Amino acid sequence: MSRKITDLKRPHLKAMSPDAGMGNGPRLGLSGERFSLVYHLSGPRAKAEETAADIAIEQTIEFPPDLVSDEEIRERIIGRVESLRELAENRFEAAISFAIEIAGVEITQLLNVAFGNISLKSSIRLVRFDLPESVLRFFRGPRFGRNGLRSLISVPTRPLLGTALKPLGLSPPEIAELAYKFALDGIDLIKDDHGLADQPFCRFDERVARAAEAVHRANEKTGRQSLYLPNVTAPLSEIRRRVRFAVDAGAGGLLIAPGLVGFDAMREIADDDSVALPILSHPAFHGSFVTHPAQGLSHFALFGQIPRLCGADACIFPHHGGRFPISRDECKDLAAGTGAPMAHLRPIFPMPAGGMRKERVPEIVDFYGPEVVLLIGGDLYRKRQG
Amino acid sequence: MSRKITDLKRPHLKAMSPDAGMGNGPRLGLSGERFSLVYHLSGPRAKAEETAADIAIEQTIEFPPDLVSDEEIRERIIGRVESLRELAENRFEAAISFAIEIAGVEITQLLNVAFGNISLKSSIRLVRFDLPESVLRFFRGPRFGRNGLRSLISVPTRPLLGTALKPLGLSPPEIAELAYKFALDGIDLIKDDHGLADQPFCRFDERVARAAEAVHRANEKTGRQSLYLPNVTAPLSEIRRRVRFAVDAGAGGLLIAPGLVGFDAMREIADDDSVALPILSHPAFHGSFVTHPAQGLSHFALFGQIPRLCGADACIFPHHGGRFPISRDECKDLAAGTGAPMAHLRPIFPMPAGGMRKERVPEIVDFYGPEVVLLIGGDLYRKRQG
Repeated sequence: MSRKITDLKRPHLKAMSPDAGMGNGPRLGLSGERFSLVYHLSGPRAKAEETAADIAIEQTIEFPPDLVSDEEIRERIIGRVESLRELAENRFEAAISFAIEIAGVEITQLLNVAFGNISLKSSIRLVRFDLPESVLRFFRGPRFGRNGLRSLISVPTRPLLGTALKPLGLSPPEIAELAYKFALDGIDLIKDDHGLADQPFCRFDERVARAAEAVHRANEKTGRQSLYLPNVTAPLSEIRRRVRFAVDAGAGGLLIAPGLVGFDAMREIADDDSVALPILSHPAFHGSFVTHPAQGLSHFALFGQIPRLCGADACIFPHHGGRFPISRDECKDLAAGTGAPMAHLRPIFPMPAGGMRKERVPEIVDFYGPEVVLLIGGDLYRKRQG
Repeated sequence: MSRKITDLKRPHLKAMSPDAGMGNGPRLGLSGERFSLVYHLSGPRAKAEETAADIAIEQTIEFPPDLVSDEEIRERIIGRVESLRELAENRFEAAISFAIEIAGVEITQLLNVAFGNISLKSSIRLVRFDLPESVLRFFRGPRFGRNGLRSLISVPTRPLLGTALKPLGLSPPEIAELAYKFALDGIDLIKDDHGLADQPFCRFDERVARAAEAVHRANEKTGRQSLYLPNVTAPLSEIRRRVRFAVDAGAGGLLIAPGLVGFDAMREIADDDSVALPILSHPAFHGSFVTHPAQGLSHFALFGQIPRLCGADACIFPHHGGRFPISRDECKDLAAGTGAPMAHLRPIFPMPAGGMRKERVPEIVDFYGPEVVLLIGGDLYRKRQG
């Protein structure tokens, strides 16, 4: 990526804390602004209180507080338990606040404060980021979001349709032929299956060049603006090369799995003005964060808030009732995270997938409302063959 | 990073599959070589059989097999269940093999095939990678490993000692002063606490320059070769800058949390000949993969095999009986993963941490044997103050 994010962002942080370091005024030069993280904690009240107090220490000084002689560190670096309320028997919600200077400017350190060491503890689930404008302004967020993506493809109101190019084992001309047909069929977002990487039998470059061309050719026939979105999930040096190749080949967007490449790789691509394509976030390798309801991250945070912080425009996940175990409530929670207010960060599309059948479309649209991308895979192929 | 990994590695892959694509011979041009992944599956035998068959499809074609007309894809792209054996009641071990061309050359796609979509399913735990030389040769692995790190610091046989510079809130001169004292005390590996990023009250550059200088100064007094290892976990563009700064400042190694930056960011640094420093891998944000014993990844894989594939020389994790819930058996499994045979990939150090007290040192050395780095934090500070 040619653009250096840090060069852009450092001046803000300096402006925020002019007295940082060992200068005059309070030693740490903290602004007093704080962000909050909301957790669900399991167990009786006494244990929940202990866990909340422990999170405040473990995620900051990670050190016995009685050994800290500096009062400012004890008072202002350690997190602060702002509230603890009972949700149900043996289930509590804690809000814990932190000085924004501890984490605010870097996604890696924000995630570290939110769920770094405590990911190793059981009975803690991070459910929500409550980030003030003073933190959010360091994140560009989704370049398109729901409205931007709709404008790009000239589909103002209806639910969008997506599909994946499958199966692994097809050659680039076969993939391109499929992409062409799906574009003729009126599918809006035609993405690589996330298992298509750069296999010897289906090289990235040839596949992307052919499929991008095929979708443009179909668009000329239909007058629509279907997008082809290749999978750029790869080792870092290859991501850069493949993104550039995809841009030059005329791809309409990009698919990336942050669980495999790290969230910041997605953010870097999304923020790159020389790319400027919509980003689909894929959940591969991230499932373990959500499979246990009392641990890990909420669907709201993992598939809603964090992808928005990192510039995704739509987030793929399995809809309930398909091949994957996820409840209706979890899908609702996820959809809420894609649209909840986060200052200037645009709402993004939930993109339910995972073994959905065509006859469920009305039910799914009813469930999510029109602001959704329906990702239908195998069933579309079944129809094509039938 | 100046070195382009892909330039190095592509020729191998091409040599491996000269007939790839639509050439003559079998359509896909597969070599016939396979790698295996070993999973633990929960439930009765019939369910385990179904899950194993499902993994073979979900992790490859992700598509209804009855819609695949191409026999070669059905026979050679879909994974193959090689064995299924009962471990205990409702607990089975399955070995599933895949053509090496599907994933072999890229860590991201290897992890995707191993645990991409199925991370979203419950009752599946990836316990082991069985990778042949034909896959492992694409990974450089740990540059130092156990023996290399011992040579570097001239400690041939005894367990190594490590500590972390804490608490968050100290200034760079205070961090440097601590590093100096720990080096005088004979601590071998003196690392940043993983919460030290680039906070306004403790900037990375000043901290690293001062601490590296302080440890060199102490080494001149003691005649030892203690290492200072700054935390370079950061957004990607900053990682590159901070690694370069750390090298130029004379840091003795690097700390990185692959859960926050992605595994490939660690691999890229480890493979970079212009860096050539030992790498400590930190478990922040990765805990959700191991906290549920029937899901996620084994400690063997997550803290042993994968860090070795990605070039770590030691892997930090919580030892049982400290602040974190981890069993003796899980610690044994982890230690086994740091040393199990993986062709040319060197064994690495397990680095148990997490609230260990000095009086437990003999027990821990007895548990791991001498090939261990003991990471002792708060308790060393307690001693210093006492």
